[in-house]
Order: sequence, then structure tokens, then C-alpha cells
Amino acid sequence: MKKNVLIIGAGAVGAVVAHKCAQNSQVFGSICLSSRNLENCQSVIRSIEARNYRREESFQIFARTVDASDSAQVANLIRETGSHIVINVCTAFVNMSVMDACLETGAAYIDTAVHEDSSVMNAPYPWYANFEWKKREQCAQKGVTAILGAGFDPGVVNAYCAYAARYEFDSITSIDIMDVNDGSHGRFFSTNFDPEINLREIIEDAGCLEDGEWRTFPHHSRTTDYVFPEVGEKKLYLMGHDEVHSLSKHIKGVETVRFWMGFDDHYLRCLEVFEKTGLLNHEQVTTSCGQSVVPLRVLKACLPNPASLAPDYTGKTCIGTLIKGRSKGENKEVFIYNVCSHEETFADVGSQAIAFTAGVPPVAAAMLVAQGDWDVKGMANVEELPPLPFLKLLSRLGLPMVIRKDTKADASAPSELICA
Amino acid sequence: MKKNVLIIGAGAVGAVVAHKCAQNSQVFGSICLSSRNLENCQSVIRSIEARNYRREESFQIFARTVDASDSAQVANLIRETGSHIVINVCTAFVNMSVMDACLETGAAYIDTAVHEDSSVMNAPYPWYANFEWKKREQCAQKGVTAILGAGFDPGVVNAYCAYAARYEFDSITSIDIMDVNDGSHGRFFSTNFDPEINLREIIEDAGCLEDGEWRTFPHHSRTTDYVFPEVGEKKLYLMGHDEVHSLSKHIKGVETVRFWMGFDDHYLRCLEVFEKTGLLNHEQVTTSCGQSVVPLRVLKACLPNPASLAPDYTGKTCIGTLIKGRSKGENKEVFIYNVCSHEETFADVGSQAIAFTAGVPPVAAAMLVAQGDWDVKGMANVEELPPLPFLKLLSRLGLPMVIRKDTKADASAPSELICA
Repeated sequence: MKKNVLIIGAGAVGAVVAHKCAQNSQVFGSICLSSRNLENCQSVIRSIEARNYRREESFQIFARTVDASDSAQVANLIRETGSHIVINVCTAFVNMSVMDACLETGAAYIDTAVHEDSSVMNAPYPWYANFEWKKREQCAQKGVTAILGAGFDPGVVNAYCAYAARYEFDSITSIDIMDVNDGSHGRFFSTNFDPEINLREIIEDAGCLEDGEWRTFPHHSRTTDYVFPEVGEKKLYLMGHDEVHSLSKHIKGVETVRFWMGFDDHYLRCLEVFEKTGLLNHEQVTTSCGQSVVPLRVLKACLPNPASLAPDYTGKTCIGTLIKGRSKGENKEVFIYNVCSHEETFADVGSQAIAFTAGVPPVAAAMLVAQGDWDVKGMANVEELPPLPFLKLLSRLGLPMVIRKDTKADASAPSELICA
Repeated sequence: MKKNVLIIGAGAVGAVVAHKCAQNSQVFGSICLSSRNLENCQSVIRSIEARNYRREESFQIFARTVDASDSAQVANLIRETGSHIVINVCTAFVNMSVMDACLETGAAYIDTAVHEDSSVMNAPYPWYANFEWKKREQCAQKGVTAILGAGFDPGVVNAYCAYAARYEFDSITSIDIMDVNDGSHGRFFSTNFDPEINLREIIEDAGCLEDGEWRTFPHHSRTTDYVFPEVGEKKLYLMGHDEVHSLSKHIKGVETVRFWMGFDDHYLRCLEVFEKTGLLNHEQVTTSCGQSVVPLRVLKACLPNPASLAPDYTGKTCIGTLIKGRSKGENKEVFIYNVCSHEETFADVGSQAIAFTAGVPPVAAAMLVAQGDWDVKGMANVEELPPLPFLKLLSRLGLPMVIRKDTKADASAPSELICA
């Protein structure tokens, strides 16, 4: 039986998820795209209909309003739509209410980022253990599949690590996830996904596992340079990121797990102005007119809608994992990565590459759940699942994995296309 | 009879006005300090009481709440307090409602900036003629004194022009008002007075009179350098400013009137970020939570309260007018200016120099109205009034006027102290 899917969130990532589901209507039954804002959903559906994807006759897609922070509302919508799988690409503040609705109804749950409490900055380590992992037992008892962090990073990079652990290494000692966007959107300043989530995470302390110890550093206080395939040398900054925590628990023997992101100087100058003037404050302030407002939400309202960047976006992203360890008695390093072109993703689904890289993997995960490969009847982070079906499917969906074994090479050094 | 004064506005400038009134209690009867926020008024009064100025026994100062945009409320407060003189140092959005209350009650009106409509950016020239000057006839008919723009700039610089026209020149062809703050407040970014008023005016088109024609330029698109007395060489940017308009009408034969302000590169970088991300928008935007907010008001709520800068402020301001014309058959230039030290004004009244230079002149004007010299029973901009009593009084109150006749000199060149 084809599986019905409920997508929660109709932002830039939700739009990619909906498009990719529509492109793969052989797997899915009905698709319900839901959001607090119905017009956002309808706009995505109009875009899908304008594209005339080849579709199964039985396939249908429709829009619904939902407040995803209200678990009962989500459960009702799951029941009403007969959804078997929920893809949660809404703000990370609602993960737990959506997961509770899945536990109540038995639907499979897939998300792309760890839960956050909107009132807490620098959420205390251990991140997954504060919220999601507390429900692990319950998922197993009820036989509810819950795939955590199935975007690109976390998500695909976790699968790269699982692949490396199975096929490239006898033991892994160090993982450096590196994420750069060499694209240009032509705006003065924009985030590439929800500014509220993005700007919060960027100014949080950078937590990492180093030499077996959990360490934290002030944001943007540690940098490294790396010569990436295709996009060349980039300056990267240490950041805390969901997968650093789960990989540190699930990749046996690993001593170092770090996440690095590329930022250009203009972006950092703007960020400094926002931060130092208090515009990234997530707590209410009172204006001289007596209105209570959250500055970060106002900044978000001023910034471009990330979904609007796509038509003008040029260039590429490169996201990968530099993995070090031992293989056949020798030290070994590999860089496993994907390069994604903003123009190509726009041609494919009308979105920029950052939304595309985040939105395609949960669709691949949903397809694997629908087909049984990943329908594990319990909770799992991506690195705990068999990587090959996921990586092969991602190649077909537009995110091919490449492996470079000469990791100190220049940008044009040859790489090996895997899982194509 | 001593005159009772109603001060409207208890921000950084209002605090200076109240302190200076209290220091000159031989002239004034009771002082009512009013604001939308009673605590702001009470805090200023506590500061005054802590200073133990030598006071007349009859002198008293007290706080009242008022919504200055409500003319009837202001009129009631004038009547209730028996105020003879209203010093309006509230936001420039309320000038007309306060002036109407004065016209209704017969109290004298003094302000420091031209009226603004909060919904209009780049208010169309001619500025004073759009609002205040429409009430000129009515003031004359009712015999109500209304002194417009009696701060430093506009205000004292207008008196410098009137002085130059009477005592230094046969004819004036060109006036360049130049305002630099060589002080440091030690904060990442702050305006020195109300951010809402300040940041609006800074990004408005720069209007000026040049060679007899009214011209406008995009903000910060024209620069000049000038070597100031004491604070040295500074880069200045053309801005629109109230007094450019009134001086162009009242200084006979003048062909060029411009206003220039000094900005450092860090300030301009922050301003660019605020402007280009829409944070200076004075119109409502809607957040993703459905709240309607004015970004500029939220930015204001995030920035330091200008009154809080004073204790840490170091350095000096220099504000003056470079005046060119003919005298005794020859070309002549003079630079008439005041240098004001942040530390000295803090010692005097607990405020920084920018609030001090803006707040002391309206007190001088009120003293001249109280004593009769400027009680003109009609409406006047400062350049229309006899300058000497004002300039002499300002010297005594802490803002001495200096004249430099070798205008191309370096920062240490000798100047002549006038009206000391």
C-alpha cells in the first residue's frame, strides 16, 4: 500500500520536500502540506502543479492549517489525513509536540534538526538526550519509527560516517563536518533558512568532542582553512551542531567530532552588528510605546524570506566530512562530500541548494520508511541505520556522494563518485 | 514675577533642561517636568536633588505624566501648573500638539527641532513652512511667543549667523554648519539622542541651498573634510537639517546654506547594516507570529538609552558655522564655534555633551523670554532674534562662543573668545 505523508512546515525546506514527494508519486499516496500559514502551503502546491511532474493517477496533494506546537492538533490532522509518515520540517521548537502526535497515532516521524526550547540559548549538552532520546523507549515499545536528523547536516553527513565506518575504515578517530556555501544570492544580508533558528545557532557556544573530551568555545573563536573540491579554499569557523553529539555517541571509538561552517567577512560583520546591538535577543524587550517584542523575530520579519532567494542564486554548496582513522594497519583520511548547484536545484524544484540539501534527504528517508528499509519501529539517528540504500537513493534524487582519498589535494583533484 | 516652566520630555535633553533650570532658580518659579513615563521624570528630579544646587526658597520642581500628542492634555497641564513657558524637548512628532496647547493657553512655546510626521520620511521641503510657520499669524494675533529651533543646531548656530550678519559682515553669501563629536561612549553602537529621530534624519535625503538653488542628494553621498579647533581634522557628510531651511529664508542674500555632520567608519558600517536590512523602517511589518511592529522602534528599544552614556563619555564636541561673505569691500571668512567636553558637562549636570549642547540653549531662551528680551509675542526662529543676549547668557551657562578668523588654520590655531 502506498503511504500517505503529512509534511509539517511550508517554508523553503518544506517546499523542497513537497516537490520531491510529488516527483516520486510512485511511492506515496496522498501528501498533506501543512503550516500555520495556509497561503504558504497553497503557493507551494501551485508551484508543483505548474511543473507537471509525471504523477501516478492516485497521487494527490493538498494544504491544511496546523499549529504544530499543539500535539492534539497534529494528531487530529494525522488521523484525518490517514498519514503513515510525518516529515517535520517546521521550526525545531515543535519537534516534541509533533513526535508526541506520532507516538499517539503510530505514524512514523522524520525530522532534520534537534529540538530546541525557544526560551533557551546555549542549550546544555547533551542535546539529543535532553529531549528526543528520552522518548526512545516509548518509540520501541509502541513500534513507532522515528528518524532523527535526516536532513543534510545532520543527516547525510551522518550517513557518510556510517558508510566510512563500514566500508573505508577499521576504526575512526576523528570526524570534521565541513559546510560551505560558495553561492551568491545578491541580497545585502540573508540567512538561507529560518533566520530565527539559523542566527540563534550561529551565536551559540561551539561545542565539540576533541581528544575524547567535550569542549565548548565562544562562537567564531576557532577557525580553520580547507581546500574544497570545486569551490576551492574557504575559511571555516567551529560551531556546535546536532550531529556532533549523536556521532560522538554512535561512531565507536571516535575521539574528535567537530562541525565547521564557512562564513565570509561581510556576513560576520553584519552578524556582529546584529548581535552587539541586541537584535539577536530571543527574549522580549519593551518599546517606548509599551509593546513587548522579541528582537530576533523582528529581525526575521525584516530579512528576506529564504524561499525568495532561489531565482537569483548562483554558485554551489559543498558539504562533507573529513574522516580520519586506521585501515588495514595504516593511517587513512577521506573526504566524503556532495557539491550542489543553486542553479540546478532551482531548475529541479524551484529552490536554492541549501533548502534542497536539507529537504531532499527527509524525502529519501520517507521513501525508505515507506519501502521498509528504514522502517525500524523505533528511534534512530541516521548513522545508526544502513547507509547504502539512503546514499544510493540520494544520488538518484540529486545529491550524489563523492569520496576524495587524497584529502590534501587542490580543488580540482580527482574524486570518486560513489553510489551513483 | 518669576515664571513657571513646563518641560515636556524627560530624556537625555529633558534632564539637562531640568538641571539648568534648577541651577537658575533666580529666574524661574516652579518647574514641572513631564513625560509619558513618570519614573523618567522622577529619576531626573532625584538627580537634581542629590546635587544640592543653590536654590531660591520659592523654587520647586515636580513630575507629571503627559501624552504630549494630546493637545488638550498639554493645555490642562499648562493651566494646572500655571506655566508661563513651555520648553518642548519631547520627540519632534509632538511639536504641533504642544504648540496648539500654548496657543490655547497663552503660554510661551520653545522647541529645539522642526516638527515631523512619524509616517513620513524625506518630509518635503519647505520644512518649517509645512507645519510651524502656518501658525505664525495666529501667534502674532494672540501675542503668543513661540521660539522655534532653540537647541544648538538648530539654535545656537542660527544665533552665530545672526551675530555674523550684524557684527562681522556687510553681506553673507555662504553658511556651512558643521557638527562633529570627537567623543567616545565606549559602546558598540549608540545614538546620542532619541534613536528614532536621529536615525531617521540621518538616512533622509540631504537637502541644501547651493548657489541660490534648493538641491537634494542621497544621504552620505557628499563629503568634505575640515580641520576643527581642538578636535582636529574630520570627515563630514552633507545632511538635511532644520536650520538650512530657516537660514536660507532669514539671512538676507545668502546663496549657500549647508549642514555637515561627522561620522566615523564604524558608525556608517552599522548604519548600512541597519538600513539595508530594513531595521530603520518606520512602517509596520508583521512577524511570523502575526505581531505588527515598527522595526525602527524595536531597534531603538535594543540600543542604549542615550541618557545612560554620560558617565563613560570622554572627549569633546565641536559645532560651528563657517561663514563667508564680504566685509568692508573684501572677501571674508569666519568660523564661529563652541567646543564642549563630555566630562565637563557630566560634572556640571550629569549628562553628555550632545544632550548638554541641545538642552542648555532652550533654557537660555526661556530665561530671555522670562526676562523680556525675547518675549516677542509672536513666532520667531532664533536667527530673527537679537543674538547678543542669547550668546552672552550661553557663555555663562557653559557654552562659550569662539570665533576663528583664520579659517584655514590647523587645530591649534588661536581663536577669539567672544561673549565670555
